[in-house]
Amino acid sequence: MAKEKKAPRPKAVTPKGFRDYFGQDVTDRAEMLRKIAGVYHSYGFDALESSAVETVEALGKFLPDVDRPNAGVFAWQESEEDGKGDWLALRYDLTAPLARVYAQHRNDLPTPYRRYAMGPVWRNEKPGPGRYRQFYQCDADTVGAASVAADAEICAMLADCLEEVGIARGDYIVRVNNRKVLNGVLVSIFGFDPNSNVKNIDADIAALRETLEKHDSILRTIDKFDKVGAEGVRELLTKGRKDRSGAFIDGVGLTNSQAAKVIDFLTCRGKNNVETLEQLRAAVGKSGIGEEGVNELQEIATLLDAQGYGPDQIVIDPSVVRGLGYYTGPVYEAELTFEILDEKGRKRQFGSVAGGGRYDDLVKRFTGQAVPATGVSIGVDRLLAALREKGRIEARDVGPVVVTVMDRDRMADYQAMVGELRRAGIRAEVYLGNPKNFGNQLKYADKRHSPVAVIEGEDEKARGVVQLKDLILGAKIAESATLEEWKERPSQFEVPRADLVAKVREILAGQDAG
Amino acid sequence: MAKEKKAPRPKAVTPKGFRDYFGQDVTDRAEMLRKIAGVYHSYGFDALESSAVETVEALGKFLPDVDRPNAGVFAWQESEEDGKGDWLALRYDLTAPLARVYAQHRNDLPTPYRRYAMGPVWRNEKPGPGRYRQFYQCDADTVGAASVAADAEICAMLADCLEEVGIARGDYIVRVNNRKVLNGVLVSIFGFDPNSNVKNIDADIAALRETLEKHDSILRTIDKFDKVGAEGVRELLTKGRKDRSGAFIDGVGLTNSQAAKVIDFLTCRGKNNVETLEQLRAAVGKSGIGEEGVNELQEIATLLDAQGYGPDQIVIDPSVVRGLGYYTGPVYEAELTFEILDEKGRKRQFGSVAGGGRYDDLVKRFTGQAVPATGVSIGVDRLLAALREKGRIEARDVGPVVVTVMDRDRMADYQAMVGELRRAGIRAEVYLGNPKNFGNQLKYADKRHSPVAVIEGEDEKARGVVQLKDLILGAKIAESATLEEWKERPSQFEVPRADLVAKVREILAGQDAG
Repeated sequence: MAKEKKAPRPKAVTPKGFRDYFGQDVTDRAEMLRKIAGVYHSYGFDALESSAVETVEALGKFLPDVDRPNAGVFAWQESEEDGKGDWLALRYDLTAPLARVYAQHRNDLPTPYRRYAMGPVWRNEKPGPGRYRQFYQCDADTVGAASVAADAEICAMLADCLEEVGIARGDYIVRVNNRKVLNGVLVSIFGFDPNSNVKNIDADIAALRETLEKHDSILRTIDKFDKVGAEGVRELLTKGRKDRSGAFIDGVGLTNSQAAKVIDFLTCRGKNNVETLEQLRAAVGKSGIGEEGVNELQEIATLLDAQGYGPDQIVIDPSVVRGLGYYTGPVYEAELTFEILDEKGRKRQFGSVAGGGRYDDLVKRFTGQAVPATGVSIGVDRLLAALREKGRIEARDVGPVVVTVMDRDRMADYQAMVGELRRAGIRAEVYLGNPKNFGNQLKYADKRHSPVAVIEGEDEKARGVVQLKDLILGAKIAESATLEEWKERPSQFEVPRADLVAKVREILAGQDAG
Repeated sequence: MAKEKKAPRPKAVTPKGFRDYFGQDVTDRAEMLRKIAGVYHSYGFDALESSAVETVEALGKFLPDVDRPNAGVFAWQESEEDGKGDWLALRYDLTAPLARVYAQHRNDLPTPYRRYAMGPVWRNEKPGPGRYRQFYQCDADTVGAASVAADAEICAMLADCLEEVGIARGDYIVRVNNRKVLNGVLVSIFGFDPNSNVKNIDADIAALRETLEKHDSILRTIDKFDKVGAEGVRELLTKGRKDRSGAFIDGVGLTNSQAAKVIDFLTCRGKNNVETLEQLRAAVGKSGIGEEGVNELQEIATLLDAQGYGPDQIVIDPSVVRGLGYYTGPVYEAELTFEILDEKGRKRQFGSVAGGGRYDDLVKRFTGQAVPATGVSIGVDRLLAALREKGRIEARDVGPVVVTVMDRDRMADYQAMVGELRRAGIRAEVYLGNPKNFGNQLKYADKRHSPVAVIEGEDEKARGVVQLKDLILGAKIAESATLEEWKERPSQFEVPRADLVAKVREILAGQDAG
């Protein structure tokens, strides 16, 4: 009989640039997000979960990272009978959907609308090491509040969030700047008349955008200040520089004196906010928009001061730029200041874990009406990595107590045991594989990172006892101890069946302490 | 000057069949899922979060709902230079990705692998009222356990989950059946030799599948038992019937006596499990697979009994079928038994909120090796609706305390107030809109469902007091009370500034009690 030809088996792989998260990676993130949501909620922010899918039209061309020209979305066309279905796409961030939601529901939503959102976003980019095409964002934004009190509030909330999840004061700093100040500095550099349009900031910025073709490249260059330092930025603003790999990066083409003014601005942070603000006032000269920016920073500083946020939590820092073109006012960034070792074993600061700022044009796309908005996005994966680094998250993945199956006809007895353990709040399971080979059961328990194995064979059953194996202690003994050292600390105990729960609890407590 | 022609504004709408979730809808669901995850975890299940995007190849053609021939996925092709990129798609459930994950990582995962997963899934279907193209699923599955102890465990866990989220005993029932029993009944009806292949169940079922072309349509018909009753099923199994709208539904074409045997099987639930099992044994006659199915149900009943699950929690019920073709053994379903009013004001049972069963072929697609698996999926939206129905979720959406802005230069004072309130665990915010019109501030507080508004004008500041408006009481007064009734229960209080937190807490406590 001829064999039927079978279709080839599908490959069991994630698509390129996607990954799976297992066990603790999922629950640790969920727990961290729950704490952050708690802080957001206490500030009066309401949860919003928009759909993962948006029309391409609604998403617009606001892909935030202009440094990546290949950046794109995952998109497809709806199949309509006439072939003219809408183009749909997966959201690439949580801000573009917020603009759509606010425009769509603005009559039902309160104004100002404070909302938070957490969830995956998707980028159709070339994946690289550690760069995935699906990742989490965790945002809080206030839409419809023109006052910089809204920006100050978000900076305060960001500091609270970091402390709530376990970043100690002193290990982070929220740095605040204002795009208007930077615009003022650029005005003073390029000689654009700072007083031409002081009353109409929108028009002022729009004019600036048109006049200064180099504006965006200057922003992106300044944003590299943390990485390349003052001298590196100076080179990039003028004639260009070689990067570490030896590749030459083109410069923006400013004159040396123009670049010096920019560097002066970036480095004019004083020993406290008062001094910084004074130096910023000097840097913006007579630019109306620059002065307005300094005044806003002044107000933010006053508000945060009144609420007791000290210079070890939030500071004004002119070197913060945030590369995104769409920011129009205050910008802010949270940096973790403790040191870690990089992949080459060198010490470096952990770096940025959150950032945001004021943007006024996103809703206007839909309604024609400018709506002021400000918001922050926390880098979920980076913050989680930081918590691991600081030991704020249990590194040990604790599995369930495993009740082994010595006698497959007494499954009900074993199920009764796990029932008792669970009712006592102890995670527990019966081995459900083929019980024939007992060694496999203990291997399974190891793979599960089980702290305790429970054994009740025929003999134990007859004598009314169970055997408990302390698997953590057992592993330690196997690893390092001499027989003598551990003679008086056995890792296996025989206890009356009635004492099962009490003794397991005792072993677990010992492991936690050890 | 000629006006520049502008591109039309994008429409601010969700794509057809998608929706946004606001505030409490998001947080209530998160809280419910957190409780369910806690139960899953205590049973030794580990979290898994696979990517939302899979290759179309990996997803395969396992779209579960055969009743909807248009069911499909959202798919697109990767853009590779040669135009031959992979086809990718959004996952349509959490089971197909589990099969892919298990096949991909089987050497690193424990076997049996107990995992839970929660998250959105997407269906490219024609949207309808209450039917969305993105919705949540919440699954728990055990892969690699052939023993029906795994099925019993999931039934027990399902009962625990329902009680944990707030469905009282007596308001739900988990019903268990076995596809093998049904197959046995069909064998006895169609005269297929029941003893030909008793030792090889896979082959037996495969042969059945081939022989009985009507198998699937019988399953789907039986699955309607809850809706159309015994007589309806009899008609559908034979010559067809008119539905309520008057449309004629074709019958499956069984003879009356064949249909009678099926109905007998469906309705053979006894007054307890023992009686049901006896009647099932009679119904399957000499079919080997039928007998095996009854034995498995017997074992499940014994295990659940030993763990103390009573007939008010889990029962064997032959009328449970679950329409999906891929089930191969035990099937189970959780039904909420309390009554609600349907859209026409008629009483009806709330109905099914979860279901699942044993399926053995999903992993085989990838590896060629059959891997036994069993699992449950909880209908997140339906269970949440049930909790609302039973009053287990606070219906009142409680907003933050709103501190109004009487004097915009004293924003720092108002921020200090919300800081104090938050530190006392009270959700609070400052009004951040334009403060000019005080009426707008109170309208805003109403829209936010704020329980208390705080007012501190120049006069109050000078006298060291604040005004507190009880907005819940205020609304009640406005609605219903006569002036006399409420004279001695004012809804506005003047208290010393120092007593702000204490008095707000007192008002909130009164609202909770009221």
